[in-house]
Amino acid sequence: MPSGEAAVHPQTLGLAEAAAAVRAGRLTSGALLDACLAQIDAVEPRVKAWVHVDAPSARATAAERDAEARAGRVRGPLHGVPVGAKDIIDVAGMPTTGGARPWAHTRPGLDATCVARLRAASAVVLGKTHTTQFAYRDPAPTANPWNADHTPGGSSSGSAAAVAARMVPLALGSQTVGSVLRPAAFCGVVGYKGTYGLVPVDGVIPLAWSFDHVGVLTRSVADAALGFGVLTGAGYAATPPARPPRLALAPELLARAEPANAAQIQAIATALAAAGASVTEVKLPAVFADLHAAGQVVVESEAAAYHEPSFRQHADEFWPGIRAGVASGLGHPAPAYVRANRTRLAFREEVMPILAAHDALLSPTAPGVAPRGLGWTGDASFCAPWSWSGTPSISLPSGVAPSGLPTAVQLTAAAGGDASLFAVAAWCERVLAFSAAPGL
Amino acid sequence: MPSGEAAVHPQTLGLAEAAAAVRAGRLTSGALLDACLAQIDAVEPRVKAWVHVDAPSARATAAERDAEARAGRVRGPLHGVPVGAKDIIDVAGMPTTGGARPWAHTRPGLDATCVARLRAASAVVLGKTHTTQFAYRDPAPTANPWNADHTPGGSSSGSAAAVAARMVPLALGSQTVGSVLRPAAFCGVVGYKGTYGLVPVDGVIPLAWSFDHVGVLTRSVADAALGFGVLTGAGYAATPPARPPRLALAPELLARAEPANAAQIQAIATALAAAGASVTEVKLPAVFADLHAAGQVVVESEAAAYHEPSFRQHADEFWPGIRAGVASGLGHPAPAYVRANRTRLAFREEVMPILAAHDALLSPTAPGVAPRGLGWTGDASFCAPWSWSGTPSISLPSGVAPSGLPTAVQLTAAAGGDASLFAVAAWCERVLAFSAAPGL
Repeated sequence: MPSGEAAVHPQTLGLAEAAAAVRAGRLTSGALLDACLAQIDAVEPRVKAWVHVDAPSARATAAERDAEARAGRVRGPLHGVPVGAKDIIDVAGMPTTGGARPWAHTRPGLDATCVARLRAASAVVLGKTHTTQFAYRDPAPTANPWNADHTPGGSSSGSAAAVAARMVPLALGSQTVGSVLRPAAFCGVVGYKGTYGLVPVDGVIPLAWSFDHVGVLTRSVADAALGFGVLTGAGYAATPPARPPRLALAPELLARAEPANAAQIQAIATALAAAGASVTEVKLPAVFADLHAAGQVVVESEAAAYHEPSFRQHADEFWPGIRAGVASGLGHPAPAYVRANRTRLAFREEVMPILAAHDALLSPTAPGVAPRGLGWTGDASFCAPWSWSGTPSISLPSGVAPSGLPTAVQLTAAAGGDASLFAVAAWCERVLAFSAAPGL
Repeated sequence: MPSGEAAVHPQTLGLAEAAAAVRAGRLTSGALLDACLAQIDAVEPRVKAWVHVDAPSARATAAERDAEARAGRVRGPLHGVPVGAKDIIDVAGMPTTGGARPWAHTRPGLDATCVARLRAASAVVLGKTHTTQFAYRDPAPTANPWNADHTPGGSSSGSAAAVAARMVPLALGSQTVGSVLRPAAFCGVVGYKGTYGLVPVDGVIPLAWSFDHVGVLTRSVADAALGFGVLTGAGYAATPPARPPRLALAPELLARAEPANAAQIQAIATALAAAGASVTEVKLPAVFADLHAAGQVVVESEAAAYHEPSFRQHADEFWPGIRAGVASGLGHPAPAYVRANRTRLAFREEVMPILAAHDALLSPTAPGVAPRGLGWTGDASFCAPWSWSGTPSISLPSGVAPSGLPTAVQLTAAAGGDASLFAVAAWCERVLAFSAAPGL
């Protein structure tokens, strides 16, 4: 039985806790949903996480889940738990706008596979969360739940804010550059995106096919493992390994962070080492110097390949960031794209043995805490290398800065190392012992 | 002991026979090499297969191989057997010209990995065979050994002609569109290119990275399996399966062949069925209609990405075909390349279950026999789908047309099906019972 605050406020339960409470009959799906909806009523005017909340449909589904549970038919690991989906992801019966409504509005009749898998796990899909336009860099209206004068990050702005603000325990996001882990870091929650290709991206508006990953935002590593396991069908445990992890640290990445954040990461490395982890300094491959420019060419070219037809008709309705990105992509010559793709594949090939020699690379998720203002979603360049090399990465909240905004660390493993990364992240999470919540 | 013609003319031995004879001490590497060199002396003026033959170095290596064999140290499966390499493939100590000498002349100090593997198998690398310029469509000087007024095909023109003309039992080729199987078909030999990625392409001048395959030209399936096994380190047998194969036949491909060749393929399908094979008609995915244009965009764009720096300096020295291809590639916008690549990946994804449901797809290797004239290497469009989907394919000589030129059939399997394809090809080869040789 959840005790204390959780019993009174079921919206504060994590994904696994909430699912366990519903499964055990200690909590109804209806009561859990009502608590989430009440939280949305209370804080959404300040946070603006949602494009669309379908309360009537969610209530009907929750009632079905409760009837099933009473009949002993708990159908899946997320039975009766409300979840949200970033508004570039199709949910049958809800509009998909990609942050561009009304001109890009569709009302799909089919769930994206990732959503279908949540439904197959018996979750209750509550609504769609705000995204930057077409998951690029033009901000969503969402504010940071820790301080509404600061960006929540993007492009999965609404998903990170909704999870941080205890509106839902799990929301789907997507990451092409830094769009799951950066908002997770800025909002003090866990963000996970796995090895490229593990989660199908059908029914998700593309930004750049080579890099598009569907990921999860939750409030713990165990919840991320549970949610991501449902998305992949793999099933991941977040059991800390018996042996403390071998961590790598790249001084050149720390050097690119704000001094206070570099010091924060260094202090965490020291704490993890004190808890038994080994921390080894590593050097990134030389091609890392060319990676940012190369990845940008690939993103712009692929975004242009997707958006070109509607861009030719509606360029004025694209917001300035995505408009510039698509225009730039239309102007890249094919050989420049080919060379850029080879550069990022060279980075992938050369960085993989470095990652594989350790359990995880510890690095900043972002240069610092969430920047002030809602006009910019922040610097994605610390997340980008792992989107562009397709390697699994997770952002963990690590503390609260003197500004009152959460800090974070990023852990990255070699491609295919998702199961191990969850275990290592669970080990680190126990040392970090982060438990703060935004004071909404 | 090889008997009859083979004993008198060791240059007529296949790769496996020659290697077995040297291993057993029935033939010295030196005698085998001398026979190959004598054959080159006799027919090279008409065939023009070689850019460069390094007889002194080959003789020294053959002498070493013979000394090793006498000492009981047969070092590899190709011990003492002379082989050739297409002149886009680096052989340490020999020039690489890519069919563009002297301006593109290099003298590499390192073997390409594929060549290093032949040497590690104890083969004797005799020389470099003519290629179309940069493995594109501008013809090499090579003539068809069956009729010098006809093209040998390309781009691996010299390798196919050298093997057909009994100058060497194995030559390396490369295929990006139809450059191993088409010349094999036109020259009455076996041509094999495997699943994309199985043979490393370092040390090979690129045409289009996404499609470049190193393959082999030999005079039997067993020899192709032996040679390709050395290149991959996998080891392939060419043992016909106990159960007759399940073959697929696509009427839409037959319909695109010259009528006489379509009839030839149909007659072979009938003969294979009479021998016990099942032959089922299949339909290619609808996206096949867009494949040719898409693949061409990818080839041109990637060729331009590689050649751009030297093209900017030496455009006049590129021959017209490759000059036009690179110029076209420089003009493709990146989004067009991205869409083209998605089209060919869609074809790969959609054709794979069709291939996987059968042991092989039987189709024409080319529209007909080798075209008259040396100005055009022939139509590669029957080979291209399997280069662009990365699926293993083999061309088998199937007879001699009334024109006196050899006919051929192509067999294709799903990606990863190389071992099975060799077995099926060996089964078909036994039914085809082709034994003709050019009357040089």
